[in-house]
Amino acid sequence: MQKKNSGIKIFAPASVGNVVCGFDVLGLAVKGVGDEVIAYFKEKPGLEIVHISGAKGKLPYEVKKNTAGLAAWRLLEYLGKTELGIALELRKKMPIGSGLGSSAASAVAGAMAINELLKRPLEKRDLLPFALAGETLAIGGQAHADNIAPSLLGGITLVRSSNPPDVQRLPIIPGLHLSLLSPELQVLTKEARSILSDAVPLKDFVRQSANLGAFVAALYRQDFQLLRRSLEDFVIEPQRASLIPQFYPLKEAALEAGALGCSISGAGPAVFALSANSLVAEEVKEAMSEIWTRAGIDHQAWVTEIDMEGAKKM
Amino acid sequence: MQKKNSGIKIFAPASVGNVVCGFDVLGLAVKGVGDEVIAYFKEKPGLEIVHISGAKGKLPYEVKKNTAGLAAWRLLEYLGKTELGIALELRKKMPIGSGLGSSAASAVAGAMAINELLKRPLEKRDLLPFALAGETLAIGGQAHADNIAPSLLGGITLVRSSNPPDVQRLPIIPGLHLSLLSPELQVLTKEARSILSDAVPLKDFVRQSANLGAFVAALYRQDFQLLRRSLEDFVIEPQRASLIPQFYPLKEAALEAGALGCSISGAGPAVFALSANSLVAEEVKEAMSEIWTRAGIDHQAWVTEIDMEGAKKM
Repeated sequence: MQKKNSGIKIFAPASVGNVVCGFDVLGLAVKGVGDEVIAYFKEKPGLEIVHISGAKGKLPYEVKKNTAGLAAWRLLEYLGKTELGIALELRKKMPIGSGLGSSAASAVAGAMAINELLKRPLEKRDLLPFALAGETLAIGGQAHADNIAPSLLGGITLVRSSNPPDVQRLPIIPGLHLSLLSPELQVLTKEARSILSDAVPLKDFVRQSANLGAFVAALYRQDFQLLRRSLEDFVIEPQRASLIPQFYPLKEAALEAGALGCSISGAGPAVFALSANSLVAEEVKEAMSEIWTRAGIDHQAWVTEIDMEGAKKM
Repeated sequence: MQKKNSGIKIFAPASVGNVVCGFDVLGLAVKGVGDEVIAYFKEKPGLEIVHISGAKGKLPYEVKKNTAGLAAWRLLEYLGKTELGIALELRKKMPIGSGLGSSAASAVAGAMAINELLKRPLEKRDLLPFALAGETLAIGGQAHADNIAPSLLGGITLVRSSNPPDVQRLPIIPGLHLSLLSPELQVLTKEARSILSDAVPLKDFVRQSANLGAFVAALYRQDFQLLRRSLEDFVIEPQRASLIPQFYPLKEAALEAGALGCSISGAGPAVFALSANSLVAEEVKEAMSEIWTRAGIDHQAWVTEIDMEGAKKM
């Protein structure tokens, strides 16, 4: 049996789901923000979560009620290795319930930690269904892979189908930067979903589809102007904006500072903007941050890039 | 003043709107099928339609009630040249009300004929709003550029916005062929639109958007398998299938014969299939044609390619 110091550590990045015009379809991985899972063999048989840090007591230790634990467990089941004695440590290094794919990052890291500990019985890409099974806990129902896919694979991903998984990695335009703000508020994904109308007006369906198609074309064409025009959400953002304090002033500030687009990250309350280079992204972050600071809303703010690698062994 | 034999002749291709997963967004130009407009100067001031052939008396001679006439007229208005004496002849060489963009082809040819006769005051691309104004007659309300754009520009087009026009030309995968069938039935676009529900279930909105995004990615990646998976319509086809006799047997026959996808062309009743090469496209056409022949439905059938040029001077 191995000891903890011969275990492995996995980092899985945060992610922005939806990316303005791709509700439940688009996602992108966030560089430098994410969760860690450490896995090592232990004497006693069975999978166990032995330590959780950074979660302020919000996450359960019970394997099947924890996204990282459940993802790991499902993979062990698939491999017929549930009797192995494996300890997991979960290090939450990003806000929970923020809309930054916190549960997806944990689930991805959980599945990947097992796969690495067992010397890669599966290809990285094939871990997707197991991570997705973990995330189902957080979503409450059928999970979409729009956070799982970028956290696992990196880059900007398009999920054509979650079940069976059919995920495309889209190209990046060089220079693309993110400004990210996460307020000290929690929006539960379940609630953010329940606020949504279960139907989309035909006219908005057409406009939004057209934007998604144009977004994909813009990435392949490396066309920032087309990307800018496509970054408009007629369907989801108007329904969720009220969950985010000062959303419209914040968005206006981002666009005035030169952002290509700005919207709610996943189900919120985090907010993000895309910019064509890091200098603009810095100014955009400052402009957005000022709105929340003035309104007395505590928040974290980052300028970062898209993580092209996805989950990785540290 | 010039005479008829110094006039110009324009061919504008037929087009397939929607292209399975891009309702009101995608369109493709059909090689070898389309309408012609001939324009020449005449003594008497004003624009006049002097001859229409191939329309079986269905199309009006009054300039502002004819799609080719109205498109031509709107361009002359914009150029401040309505006093010029210009004669138009419209040669319908494709079925009317078939879902093959007949009105769009006429409108494109009308606008382009004027532009060529006047020695190109506008770039070809800039004729789009004038052709669109012509098509508004056929659509009855706000026209979408999903037939106008491919007929004018050729290729497969994505209309991000019709007003103001924002049209992207997408790449083609070499080998892509069309099987086209047009029955001896007429479906008015107005009626085919009125049958549609004015809302789309959220779930279908997501699946269909994902397919549209994947369709665009598949073209850039030259990936026939991804194209095949994306060619599914959850929203429009189920609502319109009942307008097309034997639609589902026809589609099944096309897919069994190896088509990548098969659906209704625009608002129908024409039906098309996409295949990866001309041999498959031939077999697909035969298989589809047999279904209608057995059911006693008179129809025309073609195997052709995507027209990469769009409207052109002959």
